[in-house]
Amino acid sequence: MTPPLEYRPATGCIALLDQTQLPAREVWLDLCTPEEVAEAICHLRVRGAPAIGIAAAYGVVLASDAEQPDEAVEGAIGLLESTRPTAVNLSWALARMRSVAEKHKASGCELLRAALLEEARAIEAEDRAAGLRLGRYGLELLKPGSTVLTHCHTGGAATSGYGTALAPLILGAQRGLKFSAFVDETRPLLQGSRITAWELARAGVKATLITDSMAAHVMRTRRIDAVMVGADRIAANGDVANKIGTYALAVLARTHGVAFYVSAPVSTVDFATPTGADIIIEERAPEEVTHGFGRQTAPDGIDVYNPAFDITPADYVTAIITEKGIVRPSYLTGLRALRESG
Amino acid sequence: MTPPLEYRPATGCIALLDQTQLPAREVWLDLCTPEEVAEAICHLRVRGAPAIGIAAAYGVVLASDAEQPDEAVEGAIGLLESTRPTAVNLSWALARMRSVAEKHKASGCELLRAALLEEARAIEAEDRAAGLRLGRYGLELLKPGSTVLTHCHTGGAATSGYGTALAPLILGAQRGLKFSAFVDETRPLLQGSRITAWELARAGVKATLITDSMAAHVMRTRRIDAVMVGADRIAANGDVANKIGTYALAVLARTHGVAFYVSAPVSTVDFATPTGADIIIEERAPEEVTHGFGRQTAPDGIDVYNPAFDITPADYVTAIITEKGIVRPSYLTGLRALRESG
Repeated sequence: MTPPLEYRPATGCIALLDQTQLPAREVWLDLCTPEEVAEAICHLRVRGAPAIGIAAAYGVVLASDAEQPDEAVEGAIGLLESTRPTAVNLSWALARMRSVAEKHKASGCELLRAALLEEARAIEAEDRAAGLRLGRYGLELLKPGSTVLTHCHTGGAATSGYGTALAPLILGAQRGLKFSAFVDETRPLLQGSRITAWELARAGVKATLITDSMAAHVMRTRRIDAVMVGADRIAANGDVANKIGTYALAVLARTHGVAFYVSAPVSTVDFATPTGADIIIEERAPEEVTHGFGRQTAPDGIDVYNPAFDITPADYVTAIITEKGIVRPSYLTGLRALRESG
Repeated sequence: MTPPLEYRPATGCIALLDQTQLPAREVWLDLCTPEEVAEAICHLRVRGAPAIGIAAAYGVVLASDAEQPDEAVEGAIGLLESTRPTAVNLSWALARMRSVAEKHKASGCELLRAALLEEARAIEAEDRAAGLRLGRYGLELLKPGSTVLTHCHTGGAATSGYGTALAPLILGAQRGLKFSAFVDETRPLLQGSRITAWELARAGVKATLITDSMAAHVMRTRRIDAVMVGADRIAANGDVANKIGTYALAVLARTHGVAFYVSAPVSTVDFATPTGADIIIEERAPEEVTHGFGRQTAPDGIDVYNPAFDITPADYVTAIITEKGIVRPSYLTGLRALRESG
């Protein structure tokens, strides 16, 4: 478990991992005012929707130390809301904090502070509990000593500690199950090499970094027990939209007899989207491919195709792991058949 | 066709593409002395065994303009031999030039120069003819308007103009056949984005750059007629060692019903190596993955697995294109069976 932030009652500050410094340096910042928390959210020092919500909630707690706590808390909520207006978890967490603040208006600094802290801790605990459940269900599918191949970043730095696809590995390391992982670097944005590799090593999982192009060779020449990935969206029939490169891993896993697991909360399943064919694939800027490493690596004016994700048909998915249990594709197909049969 | 160098009789100099400046800039150098050619070979401004041999041969021609041509030519051959002592084509080309120089000793500047120029042109022409034959055989497998997916760099910049896997595309463009290509960037060293993308665009082939992780999605969602790759070594049974990532493309091609062609001169087939399992896979420095292009992209101390190439079993190869004709895997298997049957 690698929580990207920790509230420290002794100092009254938040210790926050500055993700903009990864992977070269692991820098922990002390944030002691709501303004410092707002700056950290604005500049992506903390990223991932759940982690942003948790950081903001603790940012509100920091305001309750002021001489005029009620006003300071309201001011802090307004400031934090303005940092990244499109993040759903941010406004949802701040709404919860505002509701608590209003209930304890004029109760004085001590009581207000205790109530706000309790709420922030509840928000963090709920997120961690969901990650823990994903991890526990995932563990049912892995044997001690298993080697897992993973793609992109689906770990705890974006949440309160366990993540999604990394949750079983991180939980397993805590239980001494000695998992190993091959980590795809995940071009073009290198979330695998920049964040996942760092997080797994820190969690005590033996992690080996490879380029995306090496996964097939690794599956052919080493023992890989499972591919484990997250999901951006799951269609009602079980087709999975996830980071570009996921579909290739699914095909390669089938060819090499390797299990292919998708780990995601139920909120990722979009029942309004019948199949993967109904998901529009976002195309991103060519510069992510041509100028990815701080230097130009392709000629000027070259055509670039840069889809951000791909679709893995449900048939390729051995199982989808959710916080409510493990679902098999035949089950999803069965559900769809039931609905279609009227 | 993109010859990486051209001897220009009018100026008595060699125009040479400085490959160290690609892809950001296309810089052509004028090399007018053997010393300038030696510098260009030393500093990898010209690379690829055939191209080095051709550059050195013309470098010897440049020496024949001196006041004491016999001595200058012998000095130039010695200098050029010392630039990259392990390059077989270099010493082979210079041995041919020395033999011509000795035959025309004391014939005077004019005759010596003409004989040396003729030999250098012969060396260049022979290499180009082999590339042309690879291209012609490759063209038999493609229809006008075909879209080919390619990996790494196998083009003319490393040879006298046609290359191996790119030869049919470059030749086809000359004939107006309107081929398109998807070019894998080819991590870790990005030969696809740095050199292939540049060379195909320059040859008039519509080229689209993708990351290696996108090939599966492209095969699933676009029409790809063939994957065409080169080879570092081909075992006697047809197993192919080539740039890491090639095997993944072979698996993906089979899954998507796409032809998978390997293009290489017969000299690439190693009949002393029975199968791909007998080929030792070179592992290269972790820094190629963790510090690819001027920036650290992975945490300090992370384990890295960096195989330089992988093995594609012959079963996955639709055909091997050589300068002597097209070979099908069943044919190779048949040859082996004949030998094993005594």
